[in-house]
Amino acid sequence: MPPRLSCGRDVNCCPDINSTLESVCRSGFDFACIPVVHPRLKREFLNDPAKNRPGPLTRSDLCLSSNDWSNLVVGKISPWLQLDSPNYKVRRNSEIALQQELSYTAHLGLPAVVLQLENGNCANLARCLNEHILSTYCPQQYWIHVPMLSAEDQKDPVLEEEEETERVPEDTWQWWNTFRSLCDWSKKLDVLLEVTADLPEDEMIQRWLAEPVKAVLVSTSLFLTNKKGYPVLSKAHQAVLRSFFKLDVQVVLTGVDRHPDKGIRCYQQYLDHLWQTQPSPDPVTEFAKGFEDYLQNPLQPLMDNLESHTYEIFEKDPVKYSEYQRGFDGGGGWKGPLVRAAINATKQADRKVKKIYAVEKNPNAVITLENLRDEMWGHLVEVVSCDMRHWDAPEKADIIISELLGSFGDNELSPECLDGAQRFLKDDGISIPSAYTSYLAPLQSAKLYSEFRIQKEKDKTPESCFEMPYVVRLHNCQILAEPQKVFSFHHPNRDKVIDNTRHASLEFEISEDCVVHGLAGYFDTVLYKDVVLSILPSTHSPGMFSWFPILFPLRTPTFVTKGTKVVVQIWRRVTEKNVWYEWTMVQPQTLPIHNPKGRSYTIGL
Amino acid sequence: MPPRLSCGRDVNCCPDINSTLESVCRSGFDFACIPVVHPRLKREFLNDPAKNRPGPLTRSDLCLSSNDWSNLVVGKISPWLQLDSPNYKVRRNSEIALQQELSYTAHLGLPAVVLQLENGNCANLARCLNEHILSTYCPQQYWIHVPMLSAEDQKDPVLEEEEETERVPEDTWQWWNTFRSLCDWSKKLDVLLEVTADLPEDEMIQRWLAEPVKAVLVSTSLFLTNKKGYPVLSKAHQAVLRSFFKLDVQVVLTGVDRHPDKGIRCYQQYLDHLWQTQPSPDPVTEFAKGFEDYLQNPLQPLMDNLESHTYEIFEKDPVKYSEYQRGFDGGGGWKGPLVRAAINATKQADRKVKKIYAVEKNPNAVITLENLRDEMWGHLVEVVSCDMRHWDAPEKADIIISELLGSFGDNELSPECLDGAQRFLKDDGISIPSAYTSYLAPLQSAKLYSEFRIQKEKDKTPESCFEMPYVVRLHNCQILAEPQKVFSFHHPNRDKVIDNTRHASLEFEISEDCVVHGLAGYFDTVLYKDVVLSILPSTHSPGMFSWFPILFPLRTPTFVTKGTKVVVQIWRRVTEKNVWYEWTMVQPQTLPIHNPKGRSYTIGL
Repeated sequence: MPPRLSCGRDVNCCPDINSTLESVCRSGFDFACIPVVHPRLKREFLNDPAKNRPGPLTRSDLCLSSNDWSNLVVGKISPWLQLDSPNYKVRRNSEIALQQELSYTAHLGLPAVVLQLENGNCANLARCLNEHILSTYCPQQYWIHVPMLSAEDQKDPVLEEEEETERVPEDTWQWWNTFRSLCDWSKKLDVLLEVTADLPEDEMIQRWLAEPVKAVLVSTSLFLTNKKGYPVLSKAHQAVLRSFFKLDVQVVLTGVDRHPDKGIRCYQQYLDHLWQTQPSPDPVTEFAKGFEDYLQNPLQPLMDNLESHTYEIFEKDPVKYSEYQRGFDGGGGWKGPLVRAAINATKQADRKVKKIYAVEKNPNAVITLENLRDEMWGHLVEVVSCDMRHWDAPEKADIIISELLGSFGDNELSPECLDGAQRFLKDDGISIPSAYTSYLAPLQSAKLYSEFRIQKEKDKTPESCFEMPYVVRLHNCQILAEPQKVFSFHHPNRDKVIDNTRHASLEFEISEDCVVHGLAGYFDTVLYKDVVLSILPSTHSPGMFSWFPILFPLRTPTFVTKGTKVVVQIWRRVTEKNVWYEWTMVQPQTLPIHNPKGRSYTIGL
Repeated sequence: MPPRLSCGRDVNCCPDINSTLESVCRSGFDFACIPVVHPRLKREFLNDPAKNRPGPLTRSDLCLSSNDWSNLVVGKISPWLQLDSPNYKVRRNSEIALQQELSYTAHLGLPAVVLQLENGNCANLARCLNEHILSTYCPQQYWIHVPMLSAEDQKDPVLEEEEETERVPEDTWQWWNTFRSLCDWSKKLDVLLEVTADLPEDEMIQRWLAEPVKAVLVSTSLFLTNKKGYPVLSKAHQAVLRSFFKLDVQVVLTGVDRHPDKGIRCYQQYLDHLWQTQPSPDPVTEFAKGFEDYLQNPLQPLMDNLESHTYEIFEKDPVKYSEYQRGFDGGGGWKGPLVRAAINATKQADRKVKKIYAVEKNPNAVITLENLRDEMWGHLVEVVSCDMRHWDAPEKADIIISELLGSFGDNELSPECLDGAQRFLKDDGISIPSAYTSYLAPLQSAKLYSEFRIQKEKDKTPESCFEMPYVVRLHNCQILAEPQKVFSFHHPNRDKVIDNTRHASLEFEISEDCVVHGLAGYFDTVLYKDVVLSILPSTHSPGMFSWFPILFPLRTPTFVTKGTKVVVQIWRRVTEKNVWYEWTMVQPQTLPIHNPKGRSYTIGL
């Protein structure tokens, strides 16, 4: 998180850009939002006399250095443009004017351009902007200005007191959703979210946290005055701002200075104060910094040998191994910290252990173990360089301790490994972990959908990037319903015929209009009796950072209206060589089965 | 249409395949549907004693020649399989048995295999079949057996007379729709549609006509007995069969012979009689034979010079030119039949014409015109080899006659050509045509969706095949709502600034659950006063075959529930060099704008 808030000042009229910028910067702001064309310069391109108005369109590009244009100025498209007017002349004129303004902002190299949505009837505006985006290589972003409540819903209801029925506020998120869907979910679009005096329901605010909100617009009219005469925000508005700070948003201050005795700088100072006084992040958030919404391929520890660095990260987890230690009561296990946890546990419990076999298939990790044995453990530990599935054990064990769980529980093939290893477990022996369960929930995230799409690889089919799960620190997203249990495994598995294939159908109730982009996956595990680890949001083991959630993409973003059921199905498939998942949505839209036959992704056995 | 009906016989038990086939063929049938495995041979693959039952699974492949296997036998998957049973053992056992049976049908080289759907809970069956399809190169089709009404809805309601509320019949089309959506709209899937004693509403039957129905299953129990003691179908069942005959379906007869005195052959003869006595097709259908659902790229007569063959086809149209003749009253025009129609019209009206300028931009067509002039027309006609937009006319004309209309009216750039030519039209001159209008309606067609997908070209983006319109004789499809007006043009165009860009938003009410795959396009034109041509289904000029409809694809098949609004938007875009359309669906799902910036398709000016 940057040390201070990036705060911009919205300017409605800018006769001289140099003096405007100077005054804005002097008041502590980082940039200014300025009309691209003077508000009075409404143009007429059709058969009007005004068509041939003389003089330049707007100020010259020579007013500022190109460095200042690209650092200090966000351009605002003229508010009189009505691209979706039913009136032909208004619409056509707006189209030409928009193109002119967009083209000039690209010429100036502005970092961002603001376009305002006034309702959901925005298809032509979307088409025109989309065309501009496809026509320019300019690294410009487009901030789509959307209010939290529509102008209509912000009106004072006192005037219409007669009306008995309560007005259902218009859902401004739908405007944005329509707009960006038409633009094919372009990554060039961000949201400039206007915080309104009245706030929508909390769930509707939550949904914005799943959108690419780049900046929030705060009006001076939202501010109260504290005892010392300074502008401050209400608790509710503070809370809203703080929730968006998590997305590293910028803030744009709009409106006239209502505390001229204190100066406009007070607003900026207050907003920065809110930023600075955010509660410090919990250890997991701290650990995850920089990994937010970053897609990683799940580990394949059976097929690949993990690198030392990977172990190092995971071995720092302060919680995982202490819980393993709590769960432990005997001998047999893997890798350094696990062996250490086992030895510590036996000491604490004052139990004598005859032998610990540390069975490790990664020959590089074996070197670490052998060194540790020589340096610390001595004869108590015997290091075995072998895949546990193929080890010919000299004696049967009382306990098998393993750490083979992935973000989706079984996805690093713990079931197959432990089934293969239980040959050398005594009949009354136990396994740590003794059971684990995976969970899924539908998820909305425009950001992650864009990320899926850019995973597209040259030699693969266009759908393959949607046919593999990703491990990801979920951040700019919304979980749309409580996660539900998917697959469970327990060890040792004494079934006559062991079958680790699975199939589950899950049904979720959706409480707000939304778009489903994928399925968020989690797991929990019973190590032994009441000792559990969990990465489910509701029961997450505090401070444990060894696992980020897993994410199963869906090929087609699907709009779902509130009250609708979302039904998904998922399979765990097993052959001699591979394990993989297939999944899809069945309701409200039936999508094709993803990853059929493991064509885009398998986990090697 | 084949001279006779292809009719198969459904066999439930087949102890000896040779004698079965002999008797089936002797009774006039073309093939038999036979269980792949004897119904009694239910297998048990899990931990059951029956697992190791000795003996072969089923009859040997040596019973028949491979030619007979691949021509006479359609395999039926065992009816006891329940791939979506909640019972683990039943489901798992079914999975293994299904794979075994499918694998054996591929080994035998059967042309088709029947799988039955008993409800919409079919995700696992879909997954298993889909996996088989992706695993085999066998050119086998899979006939998904679906009844028109569910078993539940076919029960005699007398038993439940108490119930006041009328039962809403289950929509079996949904079963199929779920199944094939899960299988990603595989072209390997066909429908074997079971005609039931009670029939669903007509709209529900219509919807099946938009599906790949390969065969209909007719039970002997549906037959009545006529005065002579022969089996016949009711009028309603006859009508249903006849409507499916349009799709060139096969018929499969199931059930025991209920007229043993006449022999099973009577059923086949009756069904073939229905086939033979179909009303002969109208001239347009006759002309369109072989072009059904075949995607063609729209002509680009401005950019390309059409071939003689293309003219020849269109010049055979018995209606188009007689209407042009009716519309005509003066001089100035193009190409052979049009000039001929003009001359004929002046003669019939007994009007004297000073001069006809035949302006033609295709130099090859000019040769035809010059020959016609020398042979027939003489000095009345002056042939001008020139693009009408650039012709420097020696005098102004009273009438401009043109034939520049495409399937969507303006899509061969008639507006741009005629605007360019009206310089040499007198102030009170007229244009034939004087106006034209395009129309659109949402369309469902699994067949056409599959066709779009295989248009995918190597060097283009995966979506480009969905971003161009196709000219197509619509056949295996359903128009989901009345077509609505889109764009209108009139000539001459006396606007100060001529703007041929257009934008339209259309809203359709959908009356049955359906899937939208694209937008069907049509046009009509006023040649002059009350003389019109139309390719709209409701007002189609009888016998005119010059234009097939146009079809705008949609990238994502979208399931729409009845009573829902479908909103689509379309733009006509014009630059100096090109014209193109952009289009999309906005409700109930918002799809990306198709063909933005004309990236996948433009029409050259």
